[in-house]
Amino acid sequence: MKILSEHAAFGGTQRFHQHDSTEIGLPMRFALFTPPEPKALLVYLAGLTCTEETFTMKAGAQAVAAELGLALLMPDTSPRGAGVPGESESWDFGVGAGFYLDATREPWAKHWRMESWLMKELLPLVQRETGLERAGIFGHSMGGHGALTLALRHPGRFASLSAFAPICAPMQCPWGQKAFTGYLGEDRSAWAAHDASELMRQQAGVPYPGGILIDQGLNDKFLAEQLHPEAFEAACAAVGQPLTLRRQADYDHGYYFIASFVDDHLRHHAGQLLP
Amino acid sequence: MKILSEHAAFGGTQRFHQHDSTEIGLPMRFALFTPPEPKALLVYLAGLTCTEETFTMKAGAQAVAAELGLALLMPDTSPRGAGVPGESESWDFGVGAGFYLDATREPWAKHWRMESWLMKELLPLVQRETGLERAGIFGHSMGGHGALTLALRHPGRFASLSAFAPICAPMQCPWGQKAFTGYLGEDRSAWAAHDASELMRQQAGVPYPGGILIDQGLNDKFLAEQLHPEAFEAACAAVGQPLTLRRQADYDHGYYFIASFVDDHLRHHAGQLLP
Repeated sequence: MKILSEHAAFGGTQRFHQHDSTEIGLPMRFALFTPPEPKALLVYLAGLTCTEETFTMKAGAQAVAAELGLALLMPDTSPRGAGVPGESESWDFGVGAGFYLDATREPWAKHWRMESWLMKELLPLVQRETGLERAGIFGHSMGGHGALTLALRHPGRFASLSAFAPICAPMQCPWGQKAFTGYLGEDRSAWAAHDASELMRQQAGVPYPGGILIDQGLNDKFLAEQLHPEAFEAACAAVGQPLTLRRQADYDHGYYFIASFVDDHLRHHAGQLLP
Repeated sequence: MKILSEHAAFGGTQRFHQHDSTEIGLPMRFALFTPPEPKALLVYLAGLTCTEETFTMKAGAQAVAAELGLALLMPDTSPRGAGVPGESESWDFGVGAGFYLDATREPWAKHWRMESWLMKELLPLVQRETGLERAGIFGHSMGGHGALTLALRHPGRFASLSAFAPICAPMQCPWGQKAFTGYLGEDRSAWAAHDASELMRQQAGVPYPGGILIDQGLNDKFLAEQLHPEAFEAACAAVGQPLTLRRQADYDHGYYFIASFVDDHLRHHAGQLLP
């Protein structure tokens, strides 16, 4: 966990780190906020085009995280510097658009292993370094998809879950179809394992009995075509998963929306993470 | 006040504006946060290299501003697009470095009229549009210099004053000497009118009887050479101006420092601005 920079913040420390990832095969960056008295870890996954800096700088989350004792882990959104042809041609695929899964299709399969990086490497590393065993996860847009799918694909690893404007049904939207085709191939049978609404529908029990919180702005220009919260809402209802889906009038897809409601999310997680 | 973009935020609205400035002779940008129930206006002046977006995005000020009823006005830091030769060659002079004064020296005198823009044009415009008469001012680094000097040069225009890591004695530091030489000329007798410590020393009465708040990080790499808070502290003591100068261990010059203490500044202003 090489330290790239560090800043005193809210009585704790905001650090930017880099480590050599075995899973990705490249150096990977992440940000870590450590509050004065850390009690649990909360992972935030960012959206398309973002980096480990975006939420760290723009969300204003550290104030209440410091108060609650939540350490915040903000990973980057994709491998960088892999040199895959065309990796930077699209803003919604390749660099800055890892979709938090392991690609199985060439030329992406070698480096685009975001799920293995996060679950097998980064999270254990940070939990070991901080001594924080209990973890929650949340995210925004593509990172909301990441939070929902990783939380459902890895039972027991996260004790709390929320999202801002998540991509709830990637199989049904252009962003998801482009990413899944590119990373997983044309065969749609492999896609359902990375679609939050499909994953929820397949649950035998209730994975998050304490409830899931989602905020969705109604002035979000991506809502109608890309996000489909109603699909996740229906899937939760089908399996009895408690969901608080707040449709927020006037709010858009950006970080002023996230900042406006991030404290509610932090308190939602603290309520389930802390004794 | 052309609207470039607007975002719902904390029950209010965060807007980015542009207007054609007569004083500057160019379009100028500023950001304005309007809380749900606006009661007073608080002007924030940013530091070197910043724009109207920097504090707006990074400081996390809107949450408590919304709670207190403070509208926030964040102007850009210099003219842009003037086409003065060399205007973008230095990060500490020219574009992004207006120092909140009216240049008297060519080739800057025509467009670099930041004080007149702010005091004669932008502030009256925003006060008229919002109906908010009472105003306070604060800022960071070069913007802290701007807040202190404009508040002392324009008695009665601001009811409250604070700063983060301000340039307190520009006549004594490289940033100030470079800016004053470039904008005002070699004759140092013209400089004192834009030096906060000199201005404070010249006060006949106590300009801010409610007190001035300054936060200064002790891990700030610019502290020793550029900022000189002890000069302003001595000047305040000499005229009986109450000053709370908080020296904050570990904190640096950046926006994590500002974000950590911005709520205290908002409450300081609200205490003096609101009945």
